[in-house]
Amino acid sequence: MRATMMYGAGEVRVERVPDAHLIEPTDALVTVRRASICGSDLWPYNLMAPAETGRPMGHEAIGVVEAVGTDVRTVKPGDFVVMPFAYSDGTCVFCHEGLHTSCIHGGFFGTTEFLGAQAEVVRVPLADGTLFALPTGADDAMMASLLTLSDVMGTGHHAARAARVSRGKSAAVVGDGAVGLCGVIAARRLGAERIILLGRHPDRAALAKEFGATDIVSERGEQAVERVLALTGGIGVHSVLECVGTEQAIRTAISITRPGGAVGRVGVPHYEAIPAPESMFYSNVTVSGGPAPARAYIEELLPDVLEGRIEPGRVFDRVVGLDEVPDGYRAMNERKAIKVMVRP
Amino acid sequence: MRATMMYGAGEVRVERVPDAHLIEPTDALVTVRRASICGSDLWPYNLMAPAETGRPMGHEAIGVVEAVGTDVRTVKPGDFVVMPFAYSDGTCVFCHEGLHTSCIHGGFFGTTEFLGAQAEVVRVPLADGTLFALPTGADDAMMASLLTLSDVMGTGHHAARAARVSRGKSAAVVGDGAVGLCGVIAARRLGAERIILLGRHPDRAALAKEFGATDIVSERGEQAVERVLALTGGIGVHSVLECVGTEQAIRTAISITRPGGAVGRVGVPHYEAIPAPESMFYSNVTVSGGPAPARAYIEELLPDVLEGRIEPGRVFDRVVGLDEVPDGYRAMNERKAIKVMVRP
Repeated sequence: MRATMMYGAGEVRVERVPDAHLIEPTDALVTVRRASICGSDLWPYNLMAPAETGRPMGHEAIGVVEAVGTDVRTVKPGDFVVMPFAYSDGTCVFCHEGLHTSCIHGGFFGTTEFLGAQAEVVRVPLADGTLFALPTGADDAMMASLLTLSDVMGTGHHAARAARVSRGKSAAVVGDGAVGLCGVIAARRLGAERIILLGRHPDRAALAKEFGATDIVSERGEQAVERVLALTGGIGVHSVLECVGTEQAIRTAISITRPGGAVGRVGVPHYEAIPAPESMFYSNVTVSGGPAPARAYIEELLPDVLEGRIEPGRVFDRVVGLDEVPDGYRAMNERKAIKVMVRP
Repeated sequence: MRATMMYGAGEVRVERVPDAHLIEPTDALVTVRRASICGSDLWPYNLMAPAETGRPMGHEAIGVVEAVGTDVRTVKPGDFVVMPFAYSDGTCVFCHEGLHTSCIHGGFFGTTEFLGAQAEVVRVPLADGTLFALPTGADDAMMASLLTLSDVMGTGHHAARAARVSRGKSAAVVGDGAVGLCGVIAARRLGAERIILLGRHPDRAALAKEFGATDIVSERGEQAVERVLALTGGIGVHSVLECVGTEQAIRTAISITRPGGAVGRVGVPHYEAIPAPESMFYSNVTVSGGPAPARAYIEELLPDVLEGRIEPGRVFDRVVGLDEVPDGYRAMNERKAIKVMVRP
């Protein structure tokens, strides 16, 4: 079968690899109907040291179950499923608390042990806990939004939850990538009255406005902070969704948070410490967040997707076949695409 | 009148100063019945650069209202009151949210503008919002615990709230100073089932056990982290109350927090950034906290004090007169006293 492997910065190849097959009795094999390229894939795309052994890529997918191991009980061949970016047993103490990304037996797709989802077929460990069987068939019109439940919409929702977005309050979203845009959807969905997007790309700003953003701040750094403070009577916003992962982004996020407010950070951090100015302490600003337990959120978000109340699938503005995945990385990296969908 | 002034590290003097008097129509004058020396007073006691103008000291007091300005409505001469360490108008948006330390018109005692509370009389600005009139008279047996409502017990409670202590869950308290000990009381009061105190002093550990600590960890740094993880099946505790303010303390606090758990930091931070190891992000660990809105918590904590269900006043293990305040600083700084009460 064909699968996407990365061999170093800029070195993405789609190659023939041994067919995925069941290994553990708790495994399932899923034929990938749609996968996507994640903003977090761009970190190794820019930074990965050259390697002889390729790293399998892709951790977001929807597809059809092809085969299951002998211990799998809740999904069966033919099921149309969401594969969240982390696998989890669904039974441990953390899964019960809804924090599937900390599952004691879990882990993340796109490691050397498991093939990635930018492939024809993916082996899914702990299938009962990991996969969510959809009540619908593979409906073309709905594919894009359903695919976002595997990561990006769940991640935007997690940022909003971690930032304690609530009805009638203000929110800001740092970053206009696909996660940031889903953060806007999530903030709106949770009732934020004012939603300020910090981002520089006019096309993404336009989409953010359709998703519910009320203000766009295109400045960066100190200027961005001043602008948000000016928009909020000098006090900042209740909830800030940090959807980038750079030190500048977390610094900006903290600086625009209102006293007593919270930052929800979901951008994979590329900094070693969280800037903690005196004002952050004196203002009782909270910093929360991490990888989203996407699996936990599907049940909550799915009805809104199915009934069209939210359309996170609109963050996909390019579709490629499996062989064109390297072009997809290039387009996202050059900001020529917001998010790329892969149709194997 | 006499008041305590600091002129540099180690330079605490009790001197004659002009009598405190009403300035604003919203002021009250309070005759101090009991004040205390705060762990945070030890920071300037160790670090303050020599100064020609003394800094008035003391921000925790209970006392009797002597006079009020013409606009004061809710407190009157003769009232026995708690003076929280921050003054606040009680009417702004932040006060309404219970975050009195961020009051738009508020500030902190012990600045050059207002005299401190380690004095005979203190001028209290925004008296209606700041002072809490007690339903009891000045009862000697109750004085110590009532005094803790001005700061240290409220601060321990705030650490517990920020760390999201909840019934049946585990908590750890980093620091065995008076705030840490009140943190133990608060964690117990909010229902934590297991409470691990990290501290090195046997006498404080003994008191912590009486307050409800179930385990004592006397190691520091990496050893302390290993010990707490060993006590918790390798996963850490739900809630960590950081009651010190050093970089090592916040680092330890983060390292012993369970996935999905929270650190409540109330030690005045003497670090510029919060250590953010990868594990903190991947574990969705939250860092919250800041100065406690002590004013907001009095109503909640007072009944438990009055009815003897909590005895935070036991953190005071030395009482000094006003003239002996410099000895009190020395004793606390040398860890010969946990917390010193001042009886002017």
